[in-house]
Amino acid sequence: MKGVDAGAVNDFFLIICGIWVMFFKFGFTFVELGKTSGSNTANIIFKNLTDTFITLMAYWLHGYAFAFGEGSGFIGSKYFLTLGSPNLCHFFFNYARCAVATTVALGAVIERTEPIGYLISSYVFAGFVYPIASHWVWDVHGFFNPLQSKLPVQDYGGSGVVFLVGGTVALVSCYVIGARIDRWTPTFKQREHNLPLAALGASMQMMGFIGFIIGARYQITAPGEGQLAALCVLNILLAGASSGLYGLILQRLLKSYYDVDCFINTTIAGMVTVCAGANSYIPGISVMCGATSSFFYFIMEWLILRNKIDDPLHVISIYLGSGVWGLIFAGFFSAQGTLGGTDKIIGNNLLAVVVLFSWTVAIMHPLFYVMKYVKVLRIPRFMEKQGVDKFRHDKRHPLGKRKEFKLIKPH
Amino acid sequence: MKGVDAGAVNDFFLIICGIWVMFFKFGFTFVELGKTSGSNTANIIFKNLTDTFITLMAYWLHGYAFAFGEGSGFIGSKYFLTLGSPNLCHFFFNYARCAVATTVALGAVIERTEPIGYLISSYVFAGFVYPIASHWVWDVHGFFNPLQSKLPVQDYGGSGVVFLVGGTVALVSCYVIGARIDRWTPTFKQREHNLPLAALGASMQMMGFIGFIIGARYQITAPGEGQLAALCVLNILLAGASSGLYGLILQRLLKSYYDVDCFINTTIAGMVTVCAGANSYIPGISVMCGATSSFFYFIMEWLILRNKIDDPLHVISIYLGSGVWGLIFAGFFSAQGTLGGTDKIIGNNLLAVVVLFSWTVAIMHPLFYVMKYVKVLRIPRFMEKQGVDKFRHDKRHPLGKRKEFKLIKPH
Amino acid sequence: MKGVDAGAVNDFFLIICGIWVMFFKFGFTFVELGKTSGSNTANIIFKNLTDTFITLMAYWLHGYAFAFGEGSGFIGSKYFLTLGSPNLCHFFFNYARCAVATTVALGAVIERTEPIGYLISSYVFAGFVYPIASHWVWDVHGFFNPLQSKLPVQDYGGSGVVFLVGGTVALVSCYVIGARIDRWTPTFKQREHNLPLAALGASMQMMGFIGFIIGARYQITAPGEGQLAALCVLNILLAGASSGLYGLILQRLLKSYYDVDCFINTTIAGMVTVCAGANSYIPGISVMCGATSSFFYFIMEWLILRNKIDDPLHVISIYLGSGVWGLIFAGFFSAQGTLGGTDKIIGNNLLAVVVLFSWTVAIMHPLFYVMKYVKVLRIPRFMEKQGVDKFRHDKRHPLGKRKEFKLIKPH
Repeated sequence: MKGVDAGAVNDFFLIICGIWVMFFKFGFTFVELGKTSGSNTANIIFKNLTDTFITLMAYWLHGYAFAFGEGSGFIGSKYFLTLGSPNLCHFFFNYARCAVATTVALGAVIERTEPIGYLISSYVFAGFVYPIASHWVWDVHGFFNPLQSKLPVQDYGGSGVVFLVGGTVALVSCYVIGARIDRWTPTFKQREHNLPLAALGASMQMMGFIGFIIGARYQITAPGEGQLAALCVLNILLAGASSGLYGLILQRLLKSYYDVDCFINTTIAGMVTVCAGANSYIPGISVMCGATSSFFYFIMEWLILRNKIDDPLHVISIYLGSGVWGLIFAGFFSAQGTLGGTDKIIGNNLLAVVVLFSWTVAIMHPLFYVMKYVKVLRIPRFMEKQGVDKFRHDKRHPLGKRKEFKLIKPH
Repeated sequence: MKGVDAGAVNDFFLIICGIWVMFFKFGFTFVELGKTSGSNTANIIFKNLTDTFITLMAYWLHGYAFAFGEGSGFIGSKYFLTLGSPNLCHFFFNYARCAVATTVALGAVIERTEPIGYLISSYVFAGFVYPIASHWVWDVHGFFNPLQSKLPVQDYGGSGVVFLVGGTVALVSCYVIGARIDRWTPTFKQREHNLPLAALGASMQMMGFIGFIIGARYQITAPGEGQLAALCVLNILLAGASSGLYGLILQRLLKSYYDVDCFINTTIAGMVTVCAGANSYIPGISVMCGATSSFFYFIMEWLILRNKIDDPLHVISIYLGSGVWGLIFAGFFSAQGTLGGTDKIIGNNLLAVVVLFSWTVAIMHPLFYVMKYVKVLRIPRFMEKQGVDKFRHDKRHPLGKRKEFKLIKPH
Repeated sequence: MKGVDAGAVNDFFLIICGIWVMFFKFGFTFVELGKTSGSNTANIIFKNLTDTFITLMAYWLHGYAFAFGEGSGFIGSKYFLTLGSPNLCHFFFNYARCAVATTVALGAVIERTEPIGYLISSYVFAGFVYPIASHWVWDVHGFFNPLQSKLPVQDYGGSGVVFLVGGTVALVSCYVIGARIDRWTPTFKQREHNLPLAALGASMQMMGFIGFIIGARYQITAPGEGQLAALCVLNILLAGASSGLYGLILQRLLKSYYDVDCFINTTIAGMVTVCAGANSYIPGISVMCGATSSFFYFIMEWLILRNKIDDPLHVISIYLGSGVWGLIFAGFFSAQGTLGGTDKIIGNNLLAVVVLFSWTVAIMHPLFYVMKYVKVLRIPRFMEKQGVDKFRHDKRHPLGKRKEFKLIKPH
């Protein structure tokens, strides 16, 4: 019997998990395609492929170095261009998570943004904002790291680092760029395009979430790691199921039909929420986590609508809302043994919510504002009415276009 | 060189296989979406996501306990809510198989069923019918278990436990709920909706089948396990290929064109059939298994049509028919060494066919009948004509709807 | 701690990689579906499923034996029907790569080919042409094998063996079968059908490429193998990203819009190019490899158009062009340690380009020519105008058909 190298098997594990995280990322593409009008199809594909690659370039050049290149509590400083990096699997898996964060971050301004605006904000987000935030929590040198910092934060899977940060960008971008034309007129209709594509995307996200959460441990070969991974899988699924089903009941009480979109949204919200503590909850806690997350989603939706923020894909409610709630919930309910006392963690987790939110706003808000000022952010009015595809990607969708016009014409 | 824990690597293996089984399960969603009318799109997505989660809840609460919680030969009695369960990966993989069985079971009554009817039958099936059936064959305490019972049954991958049981529900549900409106009028046309989606679903099923069959062994780290897994993969693929190609030839002899739907159906049928003995056939036997399976599929189709059973997705022929044939074929052709003599196995496998079929009918038939009686089973006539989406999910599909009307109007 | 068998874990690794290669293969189906007219949908699904299975049969019966059955430097001669084969995982993974090659090979003649013509050429390609070519480079007995032949060729991942060979068939088939009706009239429009499906296919290809490249090593358990695999992943992604982004810039300089199709094509081209040396490039070289590959793609496109070769999916530019450039690039830039001196490799790699190209032409050109002569190659003119589906698969696409007619009518 030849020997088996633990490092190599862990690398294998991490690469496979990384592929599933990319699956998650591409899933988001199909959710976007499914929920937007047919006259922005090419634009959304363009956006999602470019951000995959811009993220890779930014993360490879300096993002990974800022995130995991040792350095200070604030920022890393080694492994630029992965030079000298001892573990390329670690790079790949973290790149894939960064790509998920980027796609979430830029998912709220579809149907009204200039391609060049996407490219710039992808680069800044994936090269600076996200890596530095992830350094704080996930690098052993980070000031929020649970292993050796004085401010240990419980965020195992990324409710805060990935989804809160990404969702905050969504909020900022929506705020700066404004609503779609006629969004707040009474006759506006969400132009739904392709429900099967949205379902495909949501399925891909659910399956990808499993790789996303089990890979967060970076290893599988030691005794007990397999069961820990399985606990994470179970928690993710139970939280998604309980959030989705509870959301379905809540929604059914409010309306006379079963709303499939809302069902999908609350499911993803539950999975996002449970990430922060998926390694330490017992299954029953995850069920509760999912149910509360569903409730929190409805509150967020109400707030978003009340404040007239136009977020076609509900990115803010699903990811920012659940990210915040995930960190708070983990502060209360995650296992205490390793971290030392409830009071401390909940305080630290609340602090992390504030710090991560503020950091993201502090960088991205000026950026979007400047882009708006130099006119690379929002497409002209006539383009938005007819769809970006026609003008920026030379695609005409005769069928789609006509349908759009019918819906928009009344104004 | 650090040590590698065998248990942890097996857990890793089982989680990955489980994800592919979920991939299989979601594949079925897209087959359904692709083969039904556009005015039931939201309903089908709703059905498939809810059954994923209802199944999870039912299986977690008591299904897994009934299936693998030791206990008697008939039913298990430990590990409710996975409490005390020594292996959560085992839970996850078996949950995924249960989800496949559920989706097969409820696949035959699309386009004419109330949402609430789905939810109830999913729960009963995933919480009682399937777990108890799987206990008999796959738990070491089960009375059909090949390892230590006196009635060893050869069903390695689930031709019987998953597909025969699921397919039986499909038959029962079709029988109770009846055909779609105008199904047996001469002008009825199968309202095909989206062939690429059906192809996507079928591709997902084929890839998922690989995880489904290799995971059935629950382990990979011992010498020889890798080759056994590879043999299963080869057998699944060869059976699918031979069944599909033979079905194509048979069908081409009957008609003047190449029927893609029939080709896909026979392919899946071949894979279902070979499951029962995929671990013990030599590749040549699998080719034969596939070809006979294809023949059996045509007989089933003929019987179904002759008896005027309306099964839009051919679930009964593909899964019930092939499940039965798979158990019979395994009774004759699977390796004899471990089980002790051909005569015994074929007898036991035939008995298993009868027992599994009767058990499923005994529970599900009264359930469907009661649901029909209290009117939560079939949607009203006008809803069926216009599509469930409009009434139960508040989705209008202007294009799809118009097309439907054209096809239905003549009556 | 129980022992873990290295062989079994490698088998596990190879099966998982093989599934991802199948994912790649099915991805090509959706690219085809997305980029062709709706009136050939069933035909394309038919083509892709049959070639999956015809390839399996041919490869199982004798293809694998010719490729890896020891034998002479030219052809192997053992393991027919996998009998006596010591490693079935090796068979599965190589079958999956063969299926990718087949699907590439027959991807250029869609919309105008008889089903029977596909079947015959799939069989010949997967049973003879590809296996023998792969024997030369990848079997230790092959005369181009880097391990022990006198003509070591650097083709780690298959730029030459899989993509150059497949792409050559595409060129030959286009040349023999000729352009689509009216292709070179000024009013011809590429009948684009479904951009989201094309994006789905491209995403599947990108994810599948990761399994495709890491599996090429056949093992993972030895120390260092995990990092080698990660290097391959990084190189594939960087080459794809740099090729895609550089292609986007090049294309944007030529036109006033962002061309999503071209972006996807150059991305895949970059990944194809880097395959040949993905195990030995440092990441910076991969970025350069991608960028040059993008440039090479534009030259190929110009050549193809200039020579009036009608290749609806750009198979020749993407796969043949990048395959050639990949072997040349690897000849110059791959690590020299193991192979002994730059001059030698570049010479051998150039020789391999010529030999692989000539071999494929020598077998496939006569075959296509004979098929054309006996009229099983091209569908009749009226069928092509109305779409193959209607005549060969009994599928009518009322919507799609009408759209087609509008585009074709002017002539």
